[in-house]
Amino acid sequence: MFTFEVILSPALIDNYDLKEKNVVVVDILRATSTIVTAIHYGVEHVVPCLTAEETKTYQTLGYLCAGERNGLKITDFEMGNSPFECMNQNMKNKKIALTTTNGTKCFIAAKKANAYKVFCGSFLNLKAMSDFLIKESKPVVVLCAGWKDKVNLEDSLYAGALYDELQKSVELILDCDSTLMVHELYKKHEKELSDILKKSSHYQRLSYLSHEEDMVHCLQSSVYQEVVVFDNNFLKKI
Amino acid sequence: MFTFEVILSPALIDNYDLKEKNVVVVDILRATSTIVTAIHYGVEHVVPCLTAEETKTYQTLGYLCAGERNGLKITDFEMGNSPFECMNQNMKNKKIALTTTNGTKCFIAAKKANAYKVFCGSFLNLKAMSDFLIKESKPVVVLCAGWKDKVNLEDSLYAGALYDELQKSVELILDCDSTLMVHELYKKHEKELSDILKKSSHYQRLSYLSHEEDMVHCLQSSVYQEVVVFDNNFLKKI
Repeated sequence: MFTFEVILSPALIDNYDLKEKNVVVVDILRATSTIVTAIHYGVEHVVPCLTAEETKTYQTLGYLCAGERNGLKITDFEMGNSPFECMNQNMKNKKIALTTTNGTKCFIAAKKANAYKVFCGSFLNLKAMSDFLIKESKPVVVLCAGWKDKVNLEDSLYAGALYDELQKSVELILDCDSTLMVHELYKKHEKELSDILKKSSHYQRLSYLSHEEDMVHCLQSSVYQEVVVFDNNFLKKI
Repeated sequence: MFTFEVILSPALIDNYDLKEKNVVVVDILRATSTIVTAIHYGVEHVVPCLTAEETKTYQTLGYLCAGERNGLKITDFEMGNSPFECMNQNMKNKKIALTTTNGTKCFIAAKKANAYKVFCGSFLNLKAMSDFLIKESKPVVVLCAGWKDKVNLEDSLYAGALYDELQKSVELILDCDSTLMVHELYKKHEKELSDILKKSSHYQRLSYLSHEEDMVHCLQSSVYQEVVVFDNNFLKKI
């Protein structure tokens, strides 16, 4: 039995006490889905960076530079922020430095707020994440990356899905209206997530940028077994 | 045709441009419901105050002092924050200075952010508010007071209800996932709002404080015809 809370935007993080809590950072479209995919394909670790300049400093250390701003690949970087860029055998043992519009800063913020452990959440490893959190038996907080500090649909749906998955096996203490709201939303749409997502602002933003196949990939549930933790500045397999 | 956005917590206000927009502040349990009730019962105006001390300064000017902190009436004040305290003929032409935990500061914040006009929203005058906004034909933003900067269920449900009411008569431009989420939530529960509300954290907080009848009153839809605007520091009938 433990508590479950949802922070719907990074701008709300200061209202929550994260000490001794397991925090799952989520940026479904696309940062955290891409990171989980990269780790599944054998990437050694991913370093989340706040700026393009910081990311660049990792280049001389043999890292691949990856990142986007407003959905577009950063010029001169080897990779953007698409999970498909990680889906090949050449990625094995590679190291990536990644910066994105919304997701990467959340890992750093959660760590700074003294979370117990910080994880990288996605639909792709939903069940594995849930199983791990049950074993940990610590309070859980989902930190949604949102879009430029606004609340978004896809991260909220993931928070609802994780709550739903956890509560199949463990009693969750609920004193958080955000959790209640995202769970209601998820239960209403769990059988057709892509339909509801098509109405979201970020989907429309990304589909305009032709990231359709990324979105289909990112909505697959529990296809990977890896749990990804943010440890000592590295996002890596646990 | 105009846009409709929802700010789920006062802590998110800086991410929104309120210029030339009509902002509806909502704190269903109980500040904005109480204010609308007071105006319906003939109160001349209500001044929202940030602190108990500020509220006190209005006493010498002949105002009734009203307010609560954490759901409890402030000692020495004539009134707390219950709509039932306003439901009598003695309230006619009275002036009230009111401070509450979450709601009152939102009027001041919206004005400071250069909103076009700022209104006081509640289920009690939902239809009247909607009709007025349609006549205005300006972009609409609902500012949810939440609970100590956290997102809450009852204010979110109101935002969904106002969207639903408006869209019966006007085409709304939707580029805001928060709106999508609260409308989904409202549509799922519109026939039994009190049932879903019983699960909310604030309901549990208030029912512990025996405010049960307040909550029943605050969930009545479109029983009052008054539209309440925040004009020149006064909340008054338009």
